[in-house]
Order: sequence, then structure tokens, then C-alpha cells
Amino acid sequence: MRISLEEAGRRLLQAHKILITAHVHPDGDAIGASLGLMHYLRGQGKETCLFIDDDIPETFSLLPGAAAIQRPDGRDSGADLLVVLDSGIDRIGTVQACAPEAAVLNIDHHVSSEDGAGYLYLDAARAATAEIIYELLVLLHADFTLAIAMPLYTGIATDTGFFRYSNTTPYTMRAGAALIAAGVQPNIISEAMEAKPYALVKGMAAAMQTIEVTPDGRVAGLFLDQELVATLDSTEGFIDFVRVIEGVDVAVLIKCIGENICRVSMRSKGTDVSAVAMRYGGGGHVRAAGCTLPLPLAEARRTILSALAEVMGEPV
Amino acid sequence: MRISLEEAGRRLLQAHKILITAHVHPDGDAIGASLGLMHYLRGQGKETCLFIDDDIPETFSLLPGAAAIQRPDGRDSGADLLVVLDSGIDRIGTVQACAPEAAVLNIDHHVSSEDGAGYLYLDAARAATAEIIYELLVLLHADFTLAIAMPLYTGIATDTGFFRYSNTTPYTMRAGAALIAAGVQPNIISEAMEAKPYALVKGMAAAMQTIEVTPDGRVAGLFLDQELVATLDSTEGFIDFVRVIEGVDVAVLIKCIGENICRVSMRSKGTDVSAVAMRYGGGGHVRAAGCTLPLPLAEARRTILSALAEVMGEPV
Repeated sequence: MRISLEEAGRRLLQAHKILITAHVHPDGDAIGASLGLMHYLRGQGKETCLFIDDDIPETFSLLPGAAAIQRPDGRDSGADLLVVLDSGIDRIGTVQACAPEAAVLNIDHHVSSEDGAGYLYLDAARAATAEIIYELLVLLHADFTLAIAMPLYTGIATDTGFFRYSNTTPYTMRAGAALIAAGVQPNIISEAMEAKPYALVKGMAAAMQTIEVTPDGRVAGLFLDQELVATLDSTEGFIDFVRVIEGVDVAVLIKCIGENICRVSMRSKGTDVSAVAMRYGGGGHVRAAGCTLPLPLAEARRTILSALAEVMGEPV
Repeated sequence: MRISLEEAGRRLLQAHKILITAHVHPDGDAIGASLGLMHYLRGQGKETCLFIDDDIPETFSLLPGAAAIQRPDGRDSGADLLVVLDSGIDRIGTVQACAPEAAVLNIDHHVSSEDGAGYLYLDAARAATAEIIYELLVLLHADFTLAIAMPLYTGIATDTGFFRYSNTTPYTMRAGAALIAAGVQPNIISEAMEAKPYALVKGMAAAMQTIEVTPDGRVAGLFLDQELVATLDSTEGFIDFVRVIEGVDVAVLIKCIGENICRVSMRSKGTDVSAVAMRYGGGGHVRAAGCTLPLPLAEARRTILSALAEVMGEPV
């Protein structure tokens, strides 16, 4: 059942024991929204736990309360309200088993969250679930302590690429202003979020050796062979190295993840890259799409570059 | 003479012909503050020119009015007011010769701007001169057209690293909110500011091959030999690749810029790197310093790493 933000606030304040959760593979918004709400509810005297069915990346250890996040243990926590943040109830792992008697309150900014068994407050116009929690706490006349403000700021900042993405609204900026006024130091949060393991930076350096730009300058790519991919824990953010090259419309990252298996990611500033992805059984959006090709790296590279040339037509 | 922001506004509105300028090597704030003020004054019916004694980086060509920025031509523009933004009058090249009869109004956020021949409004608590111009235009009840808002937003965003640096205040964020409400698209500005020439990205890739981290993990460096440096137009931002490595306190960039001449840049999160820089005749601040060593690259590297080890003491 869809409810208003006021109603969501009432349900929180009426509950006795609250279990908060968010999606597996938790990101800054899942963790930030959850911790911010947890600190507020504890301040209101509510017994509140935070369970996430996954590891919490070390990056977030600077957030107050990060150490209090628990893995679900399968036992009934006795909660009468399960709050699901930044996620539908289908992406919280085994947490629901810890609150078998609880009503479900789902707060999210992803349109994918559906009106399910419980109560749903969804606002897809908000850049982050942490931004919705900020709005909720303003409505509840919360005192924004640093313990509340830091996680909420982190959630908003990470979901908007530090206020650079198109989802950043005037409201997003004003929320940021209020949270900085509450004591958040933007440089401390941004330095913590940008920190990368040495191994990842070395992997980036190796990946950058493979940069190639097509003669017309409109497509740029990174092409990672199986040997290099084997040394990398993650290639998150690698595509940005070529995406930022002047004049480049389509950025491509091709990773050889097995014998004759190549994973292709594409980002564009205009060209419909989902058209190329779909041709090879993949999918995505106009500006971000991907597919998997049963080909060795060199052939996958040729295949994607010629499909892109076709879709993009003659250089203007 | 120091004046108030109100007084600065009165002087602008009393002038008949206005020449705006900013420092040489203009950055986003110099250009953004200047263009924003130019559009406002033109909207008030003031004859207004904008002279900068340098090339305007292509990056800023998306800003409305960027094409109207002129190089000083040595002739008297007939201006009765010369507005010097984001700079003292000593850093505007030959522009003053184009306004020999004009009163000088200096608006800046750098403490280095001194109370000189003209009127000075200085607010070092503002993150950007564009933020001061925003404040001024609010005071003057300006209608924030997109032509005014885009350059001001760009000035604020570039001087704060897109709202990530420690100079970002609640006021900075609220100014950003108002400018986005006026129609600025943060993603358009950030994509334009992040765009890099292919040659620079290739140079980054080559530089990243030289990454080294000391065994204790507290110092990381890039060491660029003369051959590599010769291929690079700029090494701006390169030090960030090592600065973001987890656990690194001091990031070092050493460039061999001639036979036995090495330029050293250091950034730290705590260690006083100016102590090391000063030992070799350089200078700077606690967290950002540099010096030049009359040594080949390998010796410069050894010298700086051992000086840092000394200053930093034993690993904790």
C-alpha cells in the first residue's frame, strides 16, 4: 500500500522495536540512509537494529555506527516493524526471516520498488534514499546530530557522484547545505569515498595501457585480456578514463572473462548503445548498456567497434 | 579602500562603461565570475566588455558569452570602471592600459588581494569569487537567467572540486541550489569540465606506470623521466592517482624537467610536507608543497623519500 511520508513517519514513531535493512551489495546510499535513520530512531528511544545480509565495504567504516551493522543470524529479532531502505523486499537476502511478525515499511527512490506486502513510500524524483530520509527527518523536526548527518550526506553524495549527476536537484543541494551546517566535512567524506586499494590503482594503470580511440575520435575503449582481468578484483570506474576523452561519444570496456567469453560495457553521450547491446543478446539504456560475446578479445573488439560504426553512421 | 558588498553594487550600477577582467591563466572561477557579472550588467543596460590577457581554455566554450571574451588590444576602451575579479591588479597582464581613466573595483576571495589603488571587496570565507558575485546579485535582486547562472555555477563548482573540498560551506551549497533552480544542469557542466584531450589521457596512462608505494604504505609517488615529461603538456591532477591510494599520507610527483633538474610536488593528509620542501629551498603549506632539486631523477627520488621518512618518523 502506498503511503505518504507523514504516514511513514507515524508508523516509525508508533513502532516499539525496529529492524532496518537495505539491499545486498550495499552502496553508500543503502548504508547511509540506514545509519542515518538508525541514529534518529535510537535518539527517539526506539530499540533499533540494522541488519544487512552482506559485507560492509571498509570505505564506510568512518560513518558513526558502521560497526553496529549486523549480518542476519536467522533468529527472530522480535521487531514489530521492518524498514526496508533503498531496495525492494526481494533484495534484502535473509533479513526478513529475522522479523517474521513485523509489518514492512519500504522507503525507496528506485521505481523498481513495488507496492508489495507492506507499506511503501517511493519518490523517484529524489536523488537518493538518504535524501528521502533527510526529508522525513525534517518533517519530524529532528535534531540533525553529526551521527545522523554524516551517513545521510554520504548517501546523497555517493548516489549523485558528489552533486555532479543529472539527478542532482536544488533540493539535493539544500539537503547537502543543511547536513554540512550540521557538521559534515565534505572533504573528509569525499577523501574516504575516493580511497582505493593499491592493487586497484595498479590494475587501473595496467588497464589504461590498452586505451584506444577510433580514427574519427568518437569511440574510445579499454580492452582487457584474461590475464589482466584475473589480477583485478573490480573494474568499477575504469570506463570513466576513456569516457572523459574530448570528443568521445561512446566509451567501451571489453573484458575477457574466460576462454572466448567477453563482457562488453558501453556508455554514451548520445548514441543509443542499447541498440548494439541488444543485437548481441544484451540490454540496457540508451546511454548505458552491455552484452556478453562468445568470442576472443580481438574479435569481440572488432565486432563491437564495427557495430558501433554502423549505428553511429558517418562522422559529421 | 575596503568597501562593503552593497557599496560594490552601487559602484557597478553608477558606472557607464565597464571593463571586466580577471587573472592570466584563467580558471573556471576567473572566467565564470567574469561572465556571470558581464551578463548581469548587460541586462542592466550597461555597456560592458570582458578582457582577459590570455588564451581561454576550450573547456569553457560551453559557457554563454565565452566567445565575447577579448584579449586586450592596448587601446583605451573608454571604460570608467575597471572590475578586477578573482585576482589582484598585478595579475591581469596588460588590461589596465585599456582603461587608463577608470576607477578600479577589485572583488576577490583570495587573501592575497591587497587594498591597493582602488576599491576592494574581499571575502576569504567564500569558496569562489563566483560565489561572491552570486551573493552580490542576490543583494541586487537580480533575475538569474541561465546566461548568468551557468558561469557562476561553473566558477563555484571548479573552485570547490564539485563541492568536495573543505572550502565548501552551507552557503556554497545553497548558491548551487539556486543556480540549478535557474536552469543549470550539473551533469552538463561536470562532463565539460572533466573532458581531457586524448594526448593528456595517454600521458596519464604512461605516468601511472611509474607508481610506487613505500613498503610502509604511507608514501606513494609518480616519477616521470625527461622523455615522458617532454610528451606532456600538463601534469595537472596526476598526483591524485596516488593521493587516493588507501593508507597513503604523502603523495609525491617528481618530474625531470631538464638534465639534473627535478621538480617535486608533494600533497599530504597530515605530515608537514613544507618542512621537506623548505629543506631544499622550496616552500608551500603543511599539506601542499614543492621544491626543485638539481639532481637526476633516481637521486631526486631517493632524496625526497628519505627526507620524508625522516620527517614522518617510524610507522605507527
